[in-house]
Amino acid sequence: MYLACIINCPAIRAFGKHCRPLSNIMTGLTELSRNKSFGGWQTVFSHESKVLGCTMKFGVYLPPTENDTENLPVIYWLSGLTCSEANFIEKAGAQRYAAEHKVIIVNPDTSPRGLNIPGDSDSWDFGVAAGFYLNATQDPWKNNYKMYDYIIKELLDLVNSNFNTQAGNQSIMGHSMGGHGALVLSLKNPGLFKSVSAFAPICNPSICPWGIKAFSGYLGPKETGQWEEWDATELVKKYKGPPLELFIDQGLNDNFYPAQLNPKNLVEASKGAGVPVIFKERESYNHSYFYIASFIGEHIGYHAQHLK
Amino acid sequence: MYLACIINCPAIRAFGKHCRPLSNIMTGLTELSRNKSFGGWQTVFSHESKVLGCTMKFGVYLPPTENDTENLPVIYWLSGLTCSEANFIEKAGAQRYAAEHKVIIVNPDTSPRGLNIPGDSDSWDFGVAAGFYLNATQDPWKNNYKMYDYIIKELLDLVNSNFNTQAGNQSIMGHSMGGHGALVLSLKNPGLFKSVSAFAPICNPSICPWGIKAFSGYLGPKETGQWEEWDATELVKKYKGPPLELFIDQGLNDNFYPAQLNPKNLVEASKGAGVPVIFKERESYNHSYFYIASFIGEHIGYHAQHLK
Repeated sequence: MYLACIINCPAIRAFGKHCRPLSNIMTGLTELSRNKSFGGWQTVFSHESKVLGCTMKFGVYLPPTENDTENLPVIYWLSGLTCSEANFIEKAGAQRYAAEHKVIIVNPDTSPRGLNIPGDSDSWDFGVAAGFYLNATQDPWKNNYKMYDYIIKELLDLVNSNFNTQAGNQSIMGHSMGGHGALVLSLKNPGLFKSVSAFAPICNPSICPWGIKAFSGYLGPKETGQWEEWDATELVKKYKGPPLELFIDQGLNDNFYPAQLNPKNLVEASKGAGVPVIFKERESYNHSYFYIASFIGEHIGYHAQHLK
Repeated sequence: MYLACIINCPAIRAFGKHCRPLSNIMTGLTELSRNKSFGGWQTVFSHESKVLGCTMKFGVYLPPTENDTENLPVIYWLSGLTCSEANFIEKAGAQRYAAEHKVIIVNPDTSPRGLNIPGDSDSWDFGVAAGFYLNATQDPWKNNYKMYDYIIKELLDLVNSNFNTQAGNQSIMGHSMGGHGALVLSLKNPGLFKSVSAFAPICNPSICPWGIKAFSGYLGPKETGQWEEWDATELVKKYKGPPLELFIDQGLNDNFYPAQLNPKNLVEASKGAGVPVIFKERESYNHSYFYIASFIGEHIGYHAQHLK
């Protein structure tokens, strides 16, 4: 890792794999913040996204390492509705566990930002901070609302080319809308992620109010046949690829459970398709980051086992 | 503890030691939120403070217990400038350690609220969210800005009469302005707290810009002789009471270190007075909650030992 290098280069604000100085930015990354955390560094970067056509921010937690050259696995975290990259960084308490297991954690934003597309800020569950990790096909969203392509085709490469990662050795997890994203990204890309887990995920968006609103707007009417391409409960039925286990976590005092989340539909569909599921129900827990913080250590430990 | 009771009484919004229902509030507490966290409950209450003359909020983390009647020790947390009760609850990650050590954590707000005293919101380091844990003697502050009396004379009783505490078995810690508060409260009340610790505390407010501004406004000119009554570096010189060790924690990449914080003045004064000090310097850490979160477990473990 380049951490020791950075420590000795306080003037460096953006850098690549080998601690490039500001005058030699090869990567298009700008470092926005850097906080020492559990022996490692919680950082936030911005970059110009070609896929989304706007400036995007994402967090990277870099755990402490023995030397500058050690390559580490990466866990991607996808956040839920209304979140930016900040919520997870500040509230989940993931850094402690990432440091213990020596994994990098990368967490992107939840939608394009700053585009001012008419209607993109009219509601909290559509548009800004509600990208739903899909590729929109409808106007006025189809040119920019492509969070799926952003993560799969841009962010993974960006991370692998800028940090000392074990390229290809990565897992994914998320919360609510981001749990839907983690499930869909892993089911649509067999073998890309070594493991997947989700806190209170939207498991069957085609039949819940949040999903119907988002899919109608981004993809058009259900009759176009596009919805099932972005619905984990549908995708799991035709999953073919390396063995993949779905780790679904659900608080039982969650205001959005079951109507918006419907984990049992996914559990049933997975059983039918022969895809193994871990389904953990958490008595008294709600939809908040207090719930996530309580079990993020268990999830990071789960992924770390798959990334060993 | 009343936790099992609460779980079975979802309609109860405010309650006393024995799970009193809403129609029988004996305590003047109103429960504002309740989130399950690490097996216990992170709660927030409001009450009408007689000392401060306004509505105040405070957080209470209640760890999981074996039964409804177990009394537990309490650690008080005092926050820094600009904070409400929310920052510590959301960002410090203390719940995990409080659950492990079976201690209650109580964290009050940082000043009176909602009074609209002329000038109370003109700057971020004086007035609202900047009460400095003292009793003001100057107009227009002296009637309400009495955070010292609030904690010592009102909050401790309120907590002991509403929760299953081991009354008198309590410790105190804080951050920055709240670190100053923790030190001053423990030094001015020998034996009241079993232990004290502070993250990046303002150790010698009489000589730093934050302290000079606050003391001048709340207490009047230095010549009145009041400042040294609220300055840990002065108070330690005349400390008489049960043995008290000061645990001072300081990040070495803290923007406010040393000019606003001056921990070495306190360390020197303590040595001169025969008061033992643990002074931990943390390479590369700054003034943020990322720093606090990294070491809050160590502090809670320290207090738990003294509270055993």
